[in-house]
Amino acid sequence: MITEQQKKWMREAIKLSSRNIDNGGGPFGAVIVKNGEIIATGANRVTADNDPTAHAEVNAIRAAAKYLGTFDLSGCEIYTSCEPCPMCLSAIYWARIDCIYYANTQYDARAINFDDSFIYTQLSLSPEQRSIPARRILGEEAIAAFDKWRDKEDKIEY
Amino acid sequence: MITEQQKKWMREAIKLSSRNIDNGGGPFGAVIVKNGEIIATGANRVTADNDPTAHAEVNAIRAAAKYLGTFDLSGCEIYTSCEPCPMCLSAIYWARIDCIYYANTQYDARAINFDDSFIYTQLSLSPEQRSIPARRILGEEAIAAFDKWRDKEDKIEY
Repeated sequence: MITEQQKKWMREAIKLSSRNIDNGGGPFGAVIVKNGEIIATGANRVTADNDPTAHAEVNAIRAAAKYLGTFDLSGCEIYTSCEPCPMCLSAIYWARIDCIYYANTQYDARAINFDDSFIYTQLSLSPEQRSIPARRILGEEAIAAFDKWRDKEDKIEY
Repeated sequence: MITEQQKKWMREAIKLSSRNIDNGGGPFGAVIVKNGEIIATGANRVTADNDPTAHAEVNAIRAAAKYLGTFDLSGCEIYTSCEPCPMCLSAIYWARIDCIYYANTQYDARAINFDDSFIYTQLSLSPEQRSIPARRILGEEAIAAFDKWRDKEDKIEY
């Protein structure tokens, strides 16, 4: 059951996606809702800001976390004009957002030349099969920082 | 074949990961190299900056893109003290970084209570099986922005 209020929030995200095209950005918008109010919005500013991570959802998450003064967005919902790409979906997990509403799909995005669908496929492959090679080195030296973290008593975990 | 220079770059990332613990951040560091020089660094500032997206790799990518004045980091390599989480790996794809060197693994991260491995598992599931529910609404209204994008003549694609 989708309420009229939820449709209004999604229409805000869609409006952001369309207006952002006029403002030199990509066709993606998102809003984050908590306790029945929009607390943050975002649009895709990758090319406008020269920031490959500036997707609508990432920008909305950063704005919501700043607004609330916490890295934990439990209790929040995200309304995004397009199915989150793997970067944004993972950011939603890290932020602990409760649920996702989306409108366009990753396949709609692929049809206008965005790589969402390609990256989903890449992540589903084993590291050896992916197009960007990844190689492990110096694991025996890096682990000391993890040990130091484990033994730190006043750390903020998340 | 790993060169001594590549080991030095990784040791820089490891040093950042360790120092960052002392500076109120998480045990993760990364450096981005282009044409044989470090052009940007990053450390995990999630709790320090109240930004769930502020992982070492994302911060290094943002800094490198800002430094180079482009969203396209082709020709760059990333040295990260830990295997990138799915958010960071996807950001590496969006940024078109050439290759990845990492030291600790996602399983090492899990052993000190970071969710990297959990999120990798979540992304490998079908949307219906994931712990964060996702629901599609208003696709028929959202597609207009994608049509508008497709028809725009002076757009910057990426």
